[in-house]
Amino acid sequence: MGYVVGVDLGGTKISTALANLEGKVSNINVIPTNAHEGEAKVLQRIIENIEFVINDSNIDISEVKAIGIGSPGPLDAEKGIIISTPNLPFKDFNLVKPLNEKFNVPVYLDNDANVAAIGEYMLGAGKGTKNMVYFTVSTGVGGGAVLNGQIYRGNTSNALEIGHTTVAPFGPRCGCGNIGCLEAVSSGTAIGRRGQEAVRTKVETSLKNYDEVTSFEVFTEAKKGDKVAMDIIDEALTYLGIGIANAVSIFDPEMIVIGGGVTQAGDIVFDKVREVVNKRCFTAMAESTKILPAGLGTDAGVVGAVALALLEMDN
Amino acid sequence: MGYVVGVDLGGTKISTALANLEGKVSNINVIPTNAHEGEAKVLQRIIENIEFVINDSNIDISEVKAIGIGSPGPLDAEKGIIISTPNLPFKDFNLVKPLNEKFNVPVYLDNDANVAAIGEYMLGAGKGTKNMVYFTVSTGVGGGAVLNGQIYRGNTSNALEIGHTTVAPFGPRCGCGNIGCLEAVSSGTAIGRRGQEAVRTKVETSLKNYDEVTSFEVFTEAKKGDKVAMDIIDEALTYLGIGIANAVSIFDPEMIVIGGGVTQAGDIVFDKVREVVNKRCFTAMAESTKILPAGLGTDAGVVGAVALALLEMDN
Repeated sequence: MGYVVGVDLGGTKISTALANLEGKVSNINVIPTNAHEGEAKVLQRIIENIEFVINDSNIDISEVKAIGIGSPGPLDAEKGIIISTPNLPFKDFNLVKPLNEKFNVPVYLDNDANVAAIGEYMLGAGKGTKNMVYFTVSTGVGGGAVLNGQIYRGNTSNALEIGHTTVAPFGPRCGCGNIGCLEAVSSGTAIGRRGQEAVRTKVETSLKNYDEVTSFEVFTEAKKGDKVAMDIIDEALTYLGIGIANAVSIFDPEMIVIGGGVTQAGDIVFDKVREVVNKRCFTAMAESTKILPAGLGTDAGVVGAVALALLEMDN
Repeated sequence: MGYVVGVDLGGTKISTALANLEGKVSNINVIPTNAHEGEAKVLQRIIENIEFVINDSNIDISEVKAIGIGSPGPLDAEKGIIISTPNLPFKDFNLVKPLNEKFNVPVYLDNDANVAAIGEYMLGAGKGTKNMVYFTVSTGVGGGAVLNGQIYRGNTSNALEIGHTTVAPFGPRCGCGNIGCLEAVSSGTAIGRRGQEAVRTKVETSLKNYDEVTSFEVFTEAKKGDKVAMDIIDEALTYLGIGIANAVSIFDPEMIVIGGGVTQAGDIVFDKVREVVNKRCFTAMAESTKILPAGLGTDAGVVGAVALALLEMDN
């Protein structure tokens, strides 16, 4: 039997999973990151958590074929270096090398969005496809693309910054400084902000929180029929549809997978996106592209890291 | 010595070239297509033109390692089938099979935009890159992408319909039926149409032709300082810049190559595109992406077909 290990490295916790070569997870262990303790200590905790999961599963390290790690970016996946990331102590830190030396197996590192894309491609909604584009729509908008069976990283490991493509040239300013990014008009943050603006203008709406309207509240009130909330949702999802239609025209993919908190609103999201894609793309391309919700649930991060190990060890 | 043959199949003429394995063309022959004569006769003319170029070069067919063909689409590159195209008689016609049987060498077919992209990648401005996105801006806007050293075709051979991505959600209607496509706001046709509209409204402008203002005329008057022409050019190039900035954010490419008639206007195009990319993309990605004019000239079509043969025979 062979196994792989997946590590989901986050600012608050480190999740480590053992899976067989079909990606079936048999053991997950979660520990706090304790990021404030610094590089060396956090590296040590990652190593200990991998050792724990292997020992706890009663297998030998020689049966582990690869380790995959998902981390916030920016990072250099080819070199295995975390360049910097707000909630972790690593700066220009090669995370692959010490793990490779310790465990003597291939170690692969990639950013959260790529790992989520690979997870969906190998083990989630995109299973069996060849070309798949993944969107995550939550506080921000990000993405990843598996093209011809391989994750596409681009020249500086920054490909699929799809949340920062322009879809509303005269729209609101984005956190990145640009005007009218997809993220600035379609993210959960953007929907909440529009809700809050509506409350402040005192138009007639059932939206209530003066200080912090969430996208969840806007979706809830829209579903109950509040006109203001409905308009906000319609506009945000129209732009999301444009961003996804553009990805269809560019990638001609087999499937678009959409994950992230905003998709929890369900059919209202997928119906609108499908409508916009049908309207804006060539019929043949629109019809041949499946648009589906992400298939992996709460453990998506660590399952994605398992998938990264499985995909890369085969390439 | 080994050779490849490139065929540029057009509605009015067929250009066939012989090149060595470095892509150096030693012989080009051009004949009329005579499309009205139908499938069988046009196929025969393609075969005869290939034979002519080989014989005329005093080489033996056994020295030819591959044949590449560029054709208008839509077509299925993997199957070698031209699905349909307005100015050629082929309908769901497998062009690869009869040529492969006749010459007994690998034959590769691809659409004009992909062939142009491959030409630039192998033998033009993109030589030496790994990830390169090609835009052509003339009567329409099209593109192709070479990713990790391979042409990216997508699921239905329609990838990089970049002219039909939405960049102006409230803009003019495009020939494809959609609103605000890149092609509808940035193509030579769009620039000419805006010029014509300006003439008709009788605003003060040095643009003259009531019936048909060309993009060439608009560029010429803009360079002379005509305010109306300058505004038209600025708007069209701003949108072109947005389309290219979006490609930078999505592909994180080493290089963007821009070809097509509109680029003949020169620096005015490239300066504006660069300005928009710098403004709208993450600094690191903007700085790492070279943006250059196409390097292949008049024979780009047939040289691209040569490059297709060279690229595919190595893959």
